Amino acid sequence: MSFDPATLVYDDRGLIPCIAQDEETGEVLMMAWMNAESVARTLETGKVTYWSRSRQSFWVKGETSGHVQSLVDLRLDCDRDCLLAVVRQVGPACHTNRRSCFYTAVRDGEEVELMTPMG
Amino acid sequence: MSFDPATLVYDDRGLIPCIAQDEETGEVLMMAWMNAESVARTLETGKVTYWSRSRQSFWVKGETSGHVQSLVDLRLDCDRDCLLAVVRQVGPACHTNRRSCFYTAVRDGEEVELMTPMG
Repeated sequence: MSFDPATLVYDDRGLIPCIAQDEETGEVLMMAWMNAESVARTLETGKVTYWSRSRQSFWVKGETSGHVQSLVDLRLDCDRDCLLAVVRQVGPACHTNRRSCFYTAVRDGEEVELMTPMG
Repeated sequence: MSFDPATLVYDDRGLIPCIAQDEETGEVLMMAWMNAESVARTLETGKVTYWSRSRQSFWVKGETSGHVQSLVDLRLDCDRDCLLAVVRQVGPACHTNRRSCFYTAVRDGEEVELMTPMG
């Protein structure tokens, strides 16, 4: 079946969450949002392109930082309302310079930091 | 630092997305939503408990199907607006009986099914 980004299910802002997962390690790197045009651009260019809610503009991941995400595989879930981008990540995915944004765990009621910023 | 679910960032419906990842394989299984009370119950019981937007009620994953998710580790992202639950998943995570909800890939403009329902 041919894929059309318009057939995905977007929220009332026209956005769909996209999870980025590291191709090699399987690590979940981050979650951000896409609109239909972001999805189309990501597929066309192979560069993962989110929609920045704060800046209200397209966000080609790594365009300014160099920490690009190259698309390896784009997947959608059963409800068509969430995406999974399998990616090759250059450097840290997180703006704090950590490999993943999910660097804090909740253990025994305490927040524990699992990763330090990359050198 | 002591963890309080109220310090997470929820959307205007009071919800936060939670990604479930298989502890052993690293596979991304599904994404669903939690409210502050779901987060608290998940931590207290060790059973991953979402908020069902369609039923407007708590959803203890696997309570009716038996396909439970036992919490191994709960993580939050840098913006505190997305959760990652590392889980032990019994059977399929998806209501279609597939291991993961992300069983469809977009390749060369076509939708490709990557997984069949579990027997």
